[in-house]
Amino acid sequence: MEKPAITDKNIHPLIKSRWSPRSFDSRPVEADKLQRIFDAARWAPSSFNEQPWRFMVGIKGDETWDNIYDSLLEWNQQWAKTAPVLVMAIGSTHYAKTHKESDIFKYDVGQSIAYLTIQTMEEGLMMHQMGGFSKKKAIEHFGIPADFMPLTVSALGYQAAPEQLPKEFAELEHKERSRMALDELVFSGRFGQASALAR
Amino acid sequence: MEKPAITDKNIHPLIKSRWSPRSFDSRPVEADKLQRIFDAARWAPSSFNEQPWRFMVGIKGDETWDNIYDSLLEWNQQWAKTAPVLVMAIGSTHYAKTHKESDIFKYDVGQSIAYLTIQTMEEGLMMHQMGGFSKKKAIEHFGIPADFMPLTVSALGYQAAPEQLPKEFAELEHKERSRMALDELVFSGRFGQASALAR
Repeated sequence: MEKPAITDKNIHPLIKSRWSPRSFDSRPVEADKLQRIFDAARWAPSSFNEQPWRFMVGIKGDETWDNIYDSLLEWNQQWAKTAPVLVMAIGSTHYAKTHKESDIFKYDVGQSIAYLTIQTMEEGLMMHQMGGFSKKKAIEHFGIPADFMPLTVSALGYQAAPEQLPKEFAELEHKERSRMALDELVFSGRFGQASALAR
Repeated sequence: MEKPAITDKNIHPLIKSRWSPRSFDSRPVEADKLQRIFDAARWAPSSFNEQPWRFMVGIKGDETWDNIYDSLLEWNQQWAKTAPVLVMAIGSTHYAKTHKESDIFKYDVGQSIAYLTIQTMEEGLMMHQMGGFSKKKAIEHFGIPADFMPLTVSALGYQAAPEQLPKEFAELEHKERSRMALDELVFSGRFGQASALAR
């Protein structure tokens, strides 16, 4: 099932075709694909090149997968159970060099996960990010230190047909995508004033 | 001048070739390229599809460019002055639907700027992000409301030869790139314990 971005602009095919399905095939993901996916994440830019991103990677059948899955809210567990790979993105809350608190680490982890997402698409896989998980459980399961913060969990794998999902989730797969218009986002002069580019 | 990611893995060419030069040609960027660049940013995923990203876009010669430039720290002004486009990324600190404070908006703005970056590369342009600017000046210049936060400024345009830069910046263009190794970032079992994928 495809669900491309609704746009008349010729944006990059990997960006245009990306969406967040819930239906994953249990087929395992090849190790070399995962290696390229994490390598792509590594080359994102970051403030002072601090690279505040860390990843727990769970492969279905291993203890890490079970522990990430256990941290998910029940709503997400219902559909994520077939995902062959679960990835928890974790951020470093302090600058490694100065030990000062960082006010930009989440932004940089977001960049890194976006590069990871683009490489995931390039490998013919799909991904679905979740905020709905217990940070407390994550910290306990993995011994995440106090100066690191779990941020998201991503399900990753080959896509399957919507029909394999429980009915309520299968319906969600068909829900229309939506985004704000460019003139609500791209400003010139004053905040909120649409740029001529966006008209 | 090229400066590809130092990796033996076959990651996506746009990710592999991306880096953050400081030498920009004053040649203007075509409007249709900028439209695709911002459209790509629009299609990033976000928590509850809140799309907490906003952009002030300054085109060299307009008031917005002058105001973004004025907000930059002097260090950045020295090299960014030739950039034909300056983009300020701004985040919504609260969920629009519930008015609750968001703890993930920076992560999502980071994703959006990464999609913007990939499209920038696809258009044959380069980009350099900066954290070194005055948020206070930005808020004043653009009337940014209290529930929005300026996060970064990006210089964007066609790349120029390093030699057009002041000497100290020209030298920085040749500085070797570095990233942590995969086994320092990708964990399994416990936080800090390298995944078999990373070995």
